[in-house]
Amino acid sequence: MPRPKPASADPKALAAILARVRATPASSDPDDWMAAAAPAASAAEKDALRSALAAVPEPDFARDATRIPALQKLLRKDRLAAFLVPRADEHQGEYIVARAERLRWLTGFTGSSGFAIVLQKEAALFVDGRYTLQAPAETDASVIACRHFKKPPATEWLAGKLKKADRVGYDPRITPVKEAERWREALAKVGAELVGLDHNPIDSLWADRPGDPFSAARAQPLAYAGEASAARRARLGEEIAGRGADAAVLNQLDSIAWVLNVRGGDTPSTPLVQSFLILAADGHATWFVDQTKFTPGLVAHLGNGVTVRPLEAFADGLKDLAGRAVTIEPETATAWIEGVLKDQGAAIIPGPDPAVLPKARKNAIELAGTRKAHIRDGAAMVRFLRWVDAQATGQDELAVMAMLEQIRGADPLHRGPSFTTIAGAGPNGAIVHYRASPQTTRAVEAGTFLLIDSGAQYLDGTTDITRTVPVGSVPARLKRQFTLVLKGHIAVATARFPKGTGGIALDGFARRALWQAGLDFDHGTGHGVGVYLGVHEGPARISPLSQVPLEPGMILSNEPGCYETGSHGIRIENLIVVQESKLEGFLEFETITFCPIDRRAIDVRLLSTEERAWLNSYHAAVRRKLKGQLKGADLAWLMRMTRPL
Amino acid sequence: MPRPKPASADPKALAAILARVRATPASSDPDDWMAAAAPAASAAEKDALRSALAAVPEPDFARDATRIPALQKLLRKDRLAAFLVPRADEHQGEYIVARAERLRWLTGFTGSSGFAIVLQKEAALFVDGRYTLQAPAETDASVIACRHFKKPPATEWLAGKLKKADRVGYDPRITPVKEAERWREALAKVGAELVGLDHNPIDSLWADRPGDPFSAARAQPLAYAGEASAARRARLGEEIAGRGADAAVLNQLDSIAWVLNVRGGDTPSTPLVQSFLILAADGHATWFVDQTKFTPGLVAHLGNGVTVRPLEAFADGLKDLAGRAVTIEPETATAWIEGVLKDQGAAIIPGPDPAVLPKARKNAIELAGTRKAHIRDGAAMVRFLRWVDAQATGQDELAVMAMLEQIRGADPLHRGPSFTTIAGAGPNGAIVHYRASPQTTRAVEAGTFLLIDSGAQYLDGTTDITRTVPVGSVPARLKRQFTLVLKGHIAVATARFPKGTGGIALDGFARRALWQAGLDFDHGTGHGVGVYLGVHEGPARISPLSQVPLEPGMILSNEPGCYETGSHGIRIENLIVVQESKLEGFLEFETITFCPIDRRAIDVRLLSTEERAWLNSYHAAVRRKLKGQLKGADLAWLMRMTRPL
Repeated sequence: MPRPKPASADPKALAAILARVRATPASSDPDDWMAAAAPAASAAEKDALRSALAAVPEPDFARDATRIPALQKLLRKDRLAAFLVPRADEHQGEYIVARAERLRWLTGFTGSSGFAIVLQKEAALFVDGRYTLQAPAETDASVIACRHFKKPPATEWLAGKLKKADRVGYDPRITPVKEAERWREALAKVGAELVGLDHNPIDSLWADRPGDPFSAARAQPLAYAGEASAARRARLGEEIAGRGADAAVLNQLDSIAWVLNVRGGDTPSTPLVQSFLILAADGHATWFVDQTKFTPGLVAHLGNGVTVRPLEAFADGLKDLAGRAVTIEPETATAWIEGVLKDQGAAIIPGPDPAVLPKARKNAIELAGTRKAHIRDGAAMVRFLRWVDAQATGQDELAVMAMLEQIRGADPLHRGPSFTTIAGAGPNGAIVHYRASPQTTRAVEAGTFLLIDSGAQYLDGTTDITRTVPVGSVPARLKRQFTLVLKGHIAVATARFPKGTGGIALDGFARRALWQAGLDFDHGTGHGVGVYLGVHEGPARISPLSQVPLEPGMILSNEPGCYETGSHGIRIENLIVVQESKLEGFLEFETITFCPIDRRAIDVRLLSTEERAWLNSYHAAVRRKLKGQLKGADLAWLMRMTRPL
Repeated sequence: MPRPKPASADPKALAAILARVRATPASSDPDDWMAAAAPAASAAEKDALRSALAAVPEPDFARDATRIPALQKLLRKDRLAAFLVPRADEHQGEYIVARAERLRWLTGFTGSSGFAIVLQKEAALFVDGRYTLQAPAETDASVIACRHFKKPPATEWLAGKLKKADRVGYDPRITPVKEAERWREALAKVGAELVGLDHNPIDSLWADRPGDPFSAARAQPLAYAGEASAARRARLGEEIAGRGADAAVLNQLDSIAWVLNVRGGDTPSTPLVQSFLILAADGHATWFVDQTKFTPGLVAHLGNGVTVRPLEAFADGLKDLAGRAVTIEPETATAWIEGVLKDQGAAIIPGPDPAVLPKARKNAIELAGTRKAHIRDGAAMVRFLRWVDAQATGQDELAVMAMLEQIRGADPLHRGPSFTTIAGAGPNGAIVHYRASPQTTRAVEAGTFLLIDSGAQYLDGTTDITRTVPVGSVPARLKRQFTLVLKGHIAVATARFPKGTGGIALDGFARRALWQAGLDFDHGTGHGVGVYLGVHEGPARISPLSQVPLEPGMILSNEPGCYETGSHGIRIENLIVVQESKLEGFLEFETITFCPIDRRAIDVRLLSTEERAWLNSYHAAVRRKLKGQLKGADLAWLMRMTRPL
């Protein structure tokens, strides 16, 4: 397969690419996109490209209250009673590409989760508890009302507004099969109909809608992946065949990145490549992707077992499955994918995305890389926390975040944050998914906690760590809560459990000490974590909701917390790996995050002998792992903070 | 409503009643049935009735290998490829009436759980792990094969034996709606059909099949029930109306007993009355029951809000619901009930049996009675355990069981065991659902544990307690395991948890200490318990399977264990009541079982300070509650066994 000429050679093509780069999340290396668009560029040519890019405006998401009325006009024209606007793209991941930010463009709402319903004469934005203040602040009450997503659920709310034979439009390209089913059933109760639209009406109004993202797509080397794509595809092919299917259709970008051992930068915080994949039962894959984003060598890396076709050819690719048996995951595959397959007479075999479970069971190389990344990340955290101790008081949260980013950025394998850092000083720490902004940022003040939940993408692994720092001297009540959270953290870290146990059985361990004190935290104890992939991945979690058995090699977070609204937040988070126990039939956890847990915030009297021993042993390991990377004041700080309690 | 004449006045009717009494579980008072059949009998008449009853033979369940071939002949005649034989009656409870013991009559198998499939030329009995030895011993391999119920599941096994258009017969009167649906779906996969039979073919062969049970049906006084039936029916009526239903059909006998505040003795170990109930949304009930079993005063107790109709009129009662909306619980209501309702054009509204949740939330009077019953039961247990210490060594398990029954029987409110006592000496203790028989019984021997799991029905409450007694001196390994089980027991007893928490979140607390040692137990931690009703009741459990939120007033067992096949079993069981915590939004447990936990089996070094404090405080409470009821050697034993550790 001959490699096409770099797009940058053609000025018109270059302009298009520059616009796309502008609509793509900034990489930790701002020139990274050139590795695909102009791999042979000289230093001077790179300078020129940089200047050209700087001249391209960023996508404009300025709030505009005329958009909803304009959409309503279209609804009336198309005789639609309502139109559904999820925050979603074709890939159903946590992050979406800029051109899919329709909810934001339409309403002004920038939150990571939300759903709008636009009726002919009114509109509502449904958000969860995190966004009940932010949503009204960002949207215009004259055109859209903000509602809590459960009071009542959007389906019920809409059903109450409709009459028999009303038509409700939705975009099947960005709506999963199951989600569409749920809407269809809810509407059927009032005799209304869910109508899949060929074209998203928002796109007709959104004149300067960004193009597809443009970032360099690279091979993830075997030295990090630990298993060749061909071997992965063969394994998944067996699973697909075992379901009686001829092929699987994958639209989740982290699944595709894992199957093909490729990484890109098309979505924020995750190294993903916008694409689709059809994986045949014999292991052959067809990858629908913009090949101009390939870095040199990627085609060779993909090899003969992968056919590359343009993104636009995906519909044709689905049509090629006419009459075959195809497995898709109904919670993530879109209604559009299912619809095209069904139209072609393909037999749909519902089942989980075949990559999700194998991806979660990390191999030895992936684990070794992740352990290394964590040791480097731990050293960066020590440098950062030493700076917090010495200089953060009086600085604001945004400065704290910038310093952390700067320190982590010194690592040559660093590829940016794995999510936006949560740096919450005092009361802001009590907001579980807080994101500092110029409007909300607070100064770090003595007498309370500073909570920092952050993570990084490294070529060899993904990190996620939360530390809660007592600034100056904090009240005994705060220390007691910190210690109860620590007890929960230790109870999970030291847990042993029989094979087959789901996270729900362990979630209570994280809460027991808090519960005894009448405290709790309103989030799960842990989520799955990828290897230079998503910081949130399935299928297993440690949560009151997850029955999925934990399996060796899974990386999870262990992050109990305690939050006092208006005062402070506490969270202690390490990543842990599920391991075989020496005791037959049992599993246990290996903690792979190495960074001191602030001893100044601990009420030692509340710890049992075993808990104190765990902490001392953990701190001894932190010291052992990190001291070789640190010197001077940082090393002294490490030694001081890891003394036995 | 005039009370009919006692049936005993008519000799022919008397003979029928005597046969029915013979087919009814023995009551703790052997004359109890006379309270209904001959309430005014003189002492001499009672003597005569006793002699007459003694002359009636018990139902004959002797094994007979000709029965399966006879059934197979009927199948060929009726062109049925197979017939399904569950161990179930019309009421889907844990215990069934004698006339429904078709599985036992057909196969010889006496276990409490099993399922047979009879094909024209072969037959299989499906049992769980408890019965893999017992089932082959009780059945005739020349006519039926014994199989583990999961290897493969019965549905798969049968599907593999069938061909397209085969007809499989089942008895819809004893098969729940959902169960029939599962069979129908499994058979549809191979093109076979599930056929509901009007008549159970086994009944055509079973010449001396017992009649309906006959036991005295009595009012459960308000002093024990704490709420009048009319109030209960009004509450449930609101729930039924809230579902948009005109009525609910109840076939579960414990639900009916609770709704009407009646108790009987038609099934073993539970004070139930064979009957059906139709409960209207306005609170009016129609009770389908054999009125000859009523004791004087029951009709008045039922009052105007309850219409009594004969058991045989149940089908007519369902037909009266023609065109109405009726709520039934698909997991327990039978396919026959649903079928009759549907035939009448009734609209089925599936939903939980409306009595189950309210019944589980005990009121203050029920809890007060249960607490009293537990204190008396604890004193009986102390007398028994003192006897075990002094005299049980060398005696066999059957003698141990008999002694416990005799001691408990001295209580005037005692109404028999709440289940068959599990008395397991040494290796027999490792069999979780062990039931001693002349073939299996072992002598109590020194150097190992004797496990006794037992319970009683009292008019004011139901008990369930397990104690594990070290006979003589036991090895350190056994003490260690006992102490780990105790740690789990204490972790549950002391747990505090937020409202809305399901049992699954607490189950791990019972296991954590065992898990750390690579041990576990293969049963749930706790089940719901009734008040002078079933010792196992829903909907909440402490189990890896139960998400049902625990609610104040629920009585549950707390019974972690540890089992070493071929050596011994350990289980420590108290009953606990869910209570509001002083900490707002939280719940906790009150332990209501009072009986020493054997201090001689504890390795004190393994207990934390808090655990030891709990045990000492528990034993102080045991001493305080029981000492007034005990004297002499029993009191001395209590004082000795409740000393602080």
